[in-house]
Amino acid sequence: MVPAVSADCSSTSFTPLVVLELASDTKQEAIAWLLSRIRDPHQNGGIELLVEQLGLGDGGSEKENPNLFLVGAKWQRLLSGAEEVGLFKEFSDGSMRGFTCANKHNFKHFEGDGDSFLSMAECQYIIKHELDTLRAKDETHVPGHPQAKLYPGKSIIRRLLSKGVLIQVFPLHEKEELKRLSYSWYQKIKLSFQPLDDIRRYYGEGQALYFGFLEYFTFALVPMALIGVPYYLFDWENYDKYVVFAVFNLVWCTVILELWKRFSTSLAYSWGTLSRKKAFEEPRPGFHGVLGFNPVTGREEPLYSNTKRQLCVYLVSLPFVLLCLYLSLYVMMIYFLMEGWALSVHDEEPTFWTRVLLFIPSIIYAVVIEIMNLVYRYAAEFLTEWENHRLESSYQNQLILKVLVFNFFNCFASLFYIAFAMQDMALLRQSLATLLITSQILNQIMEAFLPYWLQRRRNKKMMRKVQKRKAVAEAELPLAEQVRLEADMSTYLGTFDDYLELFLLFGYVSLFSCVYPLAAVLVVLNNITEVYSDAFKMCRVFKRPFSEPAANIGVWQLAFEAMSVIAVVTNCSLIGMSPQVKAYFPESETQLILWTVAIEHGLLAFKFILSFIIPDVPKHIQIKLSRLEFESLEALKKKWILYLVWAGPPLPTGQSRKLHGGPPCARGPAQRASAAVRSSPRTPR
Amino acid sequence: MVPAVSADCSSTSFTPLVVLELASDTKQEAIAWLLSRIRDPHQNGGIELLVEQLGLGDGGSEKENPNLFLVGAKWQRLLSGAEEVGLFKEFSDGSMRGFTCANKHNFKHFEGDGDSFLSMAECQYIIKHELDTLRAKDETHVPGHPQAKLYPGKSIIRRLLSKGVLIQVFPLHEKEELKRLSYSWYQKIKLSFQPLDDIRRYYGEGQALYFGFLEYFTFALVPMALIGVPYYLFDWENYDKYVVFAVFNLVWCTVILELWKRFSTSLAYSWGTLSRKKAFEEPRPGFHGVLGFNPVTGREEPLYSNTKRQLCVYLVSLPFVLLCLYLSLYVMMIYFLMEGWALSVHDEEPTFWTRVLLFIPSIIYAVVIEIMNLVYRYAAEFLTEWENHRLESSYQNQLILKVLVFNFFNCFASLFYIAFAMQDMALLRQSLATLLITSQILNQIMEAFLPYWLQRRRNKKMMRKVQKRKAVAEAELPLAEQVRLEADMSTYLGTFDDYLELFLLFGYVSLFSCVYPLAAVLVVLNNITEVYSDAFKMCRVFKRPFSEPAANIGVWQLAFEAMSVIAVVTNCSLIGMSPQVKAYFPESETQLILWTVAIEHGLLAFKFILSFIIPDVPKHIQIKLSRLEFESLEALKKKWILYLVWAGPPLPTGQSRKLHGGPPCARGPAQRASAAVRSSPRTPR
Repeated sequence: MVPAVSADCSSTSFTPLVVLELASDTKQEAIAWLLSRIRDPHQNGGIELLVEQLGLGDGGSEKENPNLFLVGAKWQRLLSGAEEVGLFKEFSDGSMRGFTCANKHNFKHFEGDGDSFLSMAECQYIIKHELDTLRAKDETHVPGHPQAKLYPGKSIIRRLLSKGVLIQVFPLHEKEELKRLSYSWYQKIKLSFQPLDDIRRYYGEGQALYFGFLEYFTFALVPMALIGVPYYLFDWENYDKYVVFAVFNLVWCTVILELWKRFSTSLAYSWGTLSRKKAFEEPRPGFHGVLGFNPVTGREEPLYSNTKRQLCVYLVSLPFVLLCLYLSLYVMMIYFLMEGWALSVHDEEPTFWTRVLLFIPSIIYAVVIEIMNLVYRYAAEFLTEWENHRLESSYQNQLILKVLVFNFFNCFASLFYIAFAMQDMALLRQSLATLLITSQILNQIMEAFLPYWLQRRRNKKMMRKVQKRKAVAEAELPLAEQVRLEADMSTYLGTFDDYLELFLLFGYVSLFSCVYPLAAVLVVLNNITEVYSDAFKMCRVFKRPFSEPAANIGVWQLAFEAMSVIAVVTNCSLIGMSPQVKAYFPESETQLILWTVAIEHGLLAFKFILSFIIPDVPKHIQIKLSRLEFESLEALKKKWILYLVWAGPPLPTGQSRKLHGGPPCARGPAQRASAAVRSSPRTPR
Repeated sequence: MVPAVSADCSSTSFTPLVVLELASDTKQEAIAWLLSRIRDPHQNGGIELLVEQLGLGDGGSEKENPNLFLVGAKWQRLLSGAEEVGLFKEFSDGSMRGFTCANKHNFKHFEGDGDSFLSMAECQYIIKHELDTLRAKDETHVPGHPQAKLYPGKSIIRRLLSKGVLIQVFPLHEKEELKRLSYSWYQKIKLSFQPLDDIRRYYGEGQALYFGFLEYFTFALVPMALIGVPYYLFDWENYDKYVVFAVFNLVWCTVILELWKRFSTSLAYSWGTLSRKKAFEEPRPGFHGVLGFNPVTGREEPLYSNTKRQLCVYLVSLPFVLLCLYLSLYVMMIYFLMEGWALSVHDEEPTFWTRVLLFIPSIIYAVVIEIMNLVYRYAAEFLTEWENHRLESSYQNQLILKVLVFNFFNCFASLFYIAFAMQDMALLRQSLATLLITSQILNQIMEAFLPYWLQRRRNKKMMRKVQKRKAVAEAELPLAEQVRLEADMSTYLGTFDDYLELFLLFGYVSLFSCVYPLAAVLVVLNNITEVYSDAFKMCRVFKRPFSEPAANIGVWQLAFEAMSVIAVVTNCSLIGMSPQVKAYFPESETQLILWTVAIEHGLLAFKFILSFIIPDVPKHIQIKLSRLEFESLEALKKKWILYLVWAGPPLPTGQSRKLHGGPPCARGPAQRASAAVRSSPRTPR
């Protein structure tokens, strides 16, 4: 039933693209059923992919999971899949268009059979899409696994995943390509931009946009860092001279976000994700409910009451978040107690050690903040999972909202309190510096070194095992070992944590860097190491992720913009509190506050007007998009006129010929098509 | 050449829909050319409409313009036109879908030939669209009119309009329908909603949305008016007790705008304009430039440098607007001088007459404001015309922006000054009342009675003429006379002024009604008369306008939302200034201001969050829209699968058959279509 396992995997007749790992206790009948469903032609409800079991390798130990399957496809199948998923590719005239098989020879880089037309990441994305759309026919459960219930139209892969029969689905790395990419990305020490196009080709648009944003953000910080250094060097004690810096901050954070929108649109256009339509979103794997009929699709699928979910959100999640915020406030108060105690010790008998002691509370607080963020993160994931969102996108939005609010509060509450309630700029500077440096160090350790170290240990174990078995020193691992090695690698969990880190750094810089101008310098340095460590992680530590088509950074753009609004308010308040400005209003504090508020309102209004005036899409891309739209409108019209011209002999339904050459409305689609066929040889193209 | 003029127009073989009025000195060859272009079949570049000259009537005087033409079309032509313009109609399952001739029998109310399927307004819209797309072929100018230059692809109607050869294009009224509509709309005295669906059927979606908004706005004001009356009656002198009212105001203006969005979406969905795609926008008739190639369409057409236009906007229009604002400020200062003088006269020797005198400056100022608004309006139109915008939409946006800024400033500057600089609530109340009442009275006179009176005079003259000629007292005018009468009616210039008036009223209510609670009552009364006078105007005073498909109130939604943000700020400040609130902070004014600002920021943030949380599209419509989208995606997929199943015998290009039943990518569109034809008889539907 299951095809014979070929010991040497180089004998597979196709390029393996994606690996399916089934649990080792999966029943043979379930495997046979799944493989035949994957291989079945379309008319039988299959998806026509190629699939083979991976060999155990020479003398494979019985501890290894034998149920690893390699999935691939013929080139023609991939091309038609590319049309189905709505892939955009470069056309011969340089514009980006939706790929169609009928038109394939008019696309750039389409040569011969087109077997090098799609990148491997695109092929893997197509395979994943096809696997996701493999649906149950009339099976009531997975053969041999009665607990894995099915109903007509249910995605089989999602059910297998949610029941733990399918452990993971992941795309394979390309060793040559990866070597080339990692060389140009992080191994070559040079001053140049990141190879965004190569990153996109290997990891997809979502990843490339993150690295593009990271790079953009770093470059945007450079002027700030350059201004910050002399400020820090020559005005260290005059921290009240920060008005100029605050004004700069204010303009800066508005402008860079607007420009990023334009830059990201350019990237998305050149990668063909800008005009791409979103596919219909399936329920996420963990979603459960009572079987019913979906009002949109009319299919039988689990339904879950929206009211029930809203109740969960407002009666459980919201109070929980508020409780966490209260807890965070409580911890902050303990920090201030410690701070006060350290200060009193220092004041009693100032020595070098008491000066060091002054920094200790901040450092402890910074570590506690990181730990609280981490713990809260898990709680938020659990809660959001429990809210049982139907779509992955709404799950993500709810999770991001929860995490953002808490992290913002947790990281910045103490700074706001010091700045506005205590109005102690010296403490603010010290606290900011300690928080920033501590959290950066912790992050780098948690994010890069720890996973790398774990991975190294795993790799070494694997290498030893292989060498023991083979007893020859081979540079290249055989495919089977490579697949097993990759299956053991950590899974990359998406760009969420990376963006969150950038968001908090953006907050530190835009909110308070006027009191501690070195913040921008620190963040620039952190970002540079972040580029390298993230690149390293992606290439060496993690399994290859499936590429995610993305046209922008999504909800993060909104988060950064919200932060920039808060930055305007904060910076205006800091300016209003500065001794320099206070000197202008010697008598009346009321006047000062009123002016500050008025200017702040003016700036906010100006910010909104600016975001209206600056178009999100650069002119030249706007023209290209309008041209495509215009062409498709014209094509529709032409089709219609052509149809009128070649309408052919009168039809039995007499009334439709009343008008000379008029549109034969009464015809069905079949006649319409036949008219089109008759006309096509004579049509001037 | 020109077809014989039939004296009695009842002999036209088609229902006349649209009238073209050419200048009386138009050359005969131009007329003959235009008519033949309109009548020509599609393959010759014509638009296949029916057109006939209107008779002069019995004993028509030589003073009358003979060049009036009636345009109509066969039913099949209109149906195919409906498909071309992308009209949405109700489908048999109750959803709204784009009309297609192939599918016509599945639409609701499609009976027999479908000759009552389209409303007259829809037919007229289709005719107008067809006329607009009538393009020059290789003519270099209009025959007989060498000054009216043409180039291939130029819209003929637009050129004729801009050169004054074509005086006007307007749709005809339906007398029966109009009688029925006007009865249910304004003649029947009753407490009921306006017949929005009938209005939409007769005047189109743009008009109906305006009346819908007017009605919605009036109802939304009712609770405010109900609260306002007891406030006014029992607290007249305690105008400092307005905190509750200000808070109510604040919540009210946010909520009603959010709810309106949902309501208008429901309306637009039920009228089929919500999902309708915008057609490609042609240059506006008055646009001029140097002939060049449009980068979007590739057509030869006039181009005008964007930089040049930007320079015009920023170097001429902007300074002009600022100058006007300065002038308005100057007039305001004169008003305050007058006010001060009147007050001093009253204080010297208070009598009844000096008390009346106190109101005189406000009344004069209100009249001056209205005059300035009117004059500025013309200036703004002239300037925007001179800026030479390519698209009607950008012309409209620029004009609305200019007019809104000035009107807002002109109407509210004095009130803001009184409220915040003078902090004189008694004067604010008096000034607000006078401004509001005077401007309402002036508006009603200018808008309804004046045009009505002019129209009556014209009507009477016409009736006399007709009766003189016919010498019989006929109740019904013959078609020819009716057309001439309508051609003489005033042209309705769109909803701009109506929305502007509502915008200013919304401003009066939301900004300051807490100090003068009767404002809401006055606005409700004004709106009720406005409904009747607007309805009357539309039915009796103006030519029928072409229907404008609209999915929302467009840029006005933005304007009202901006006003509601300003209202939050204003109301918070008014609350902060109230003696009641001041009593809570007896010592420190600074504390009071800081609290006010903090609460105001919180409210603004809450407002933005609210506008995110409340979905713009009601759930049940969201489901219907998703269903349509899902169905179209499924249809595409099905087409593709069907195509795979019935792919037929192997093709010469061998490589495309490598895959069993795979998609034959190598085939051209012709074979593809032929496969579809072969499959169609066997396809289960």
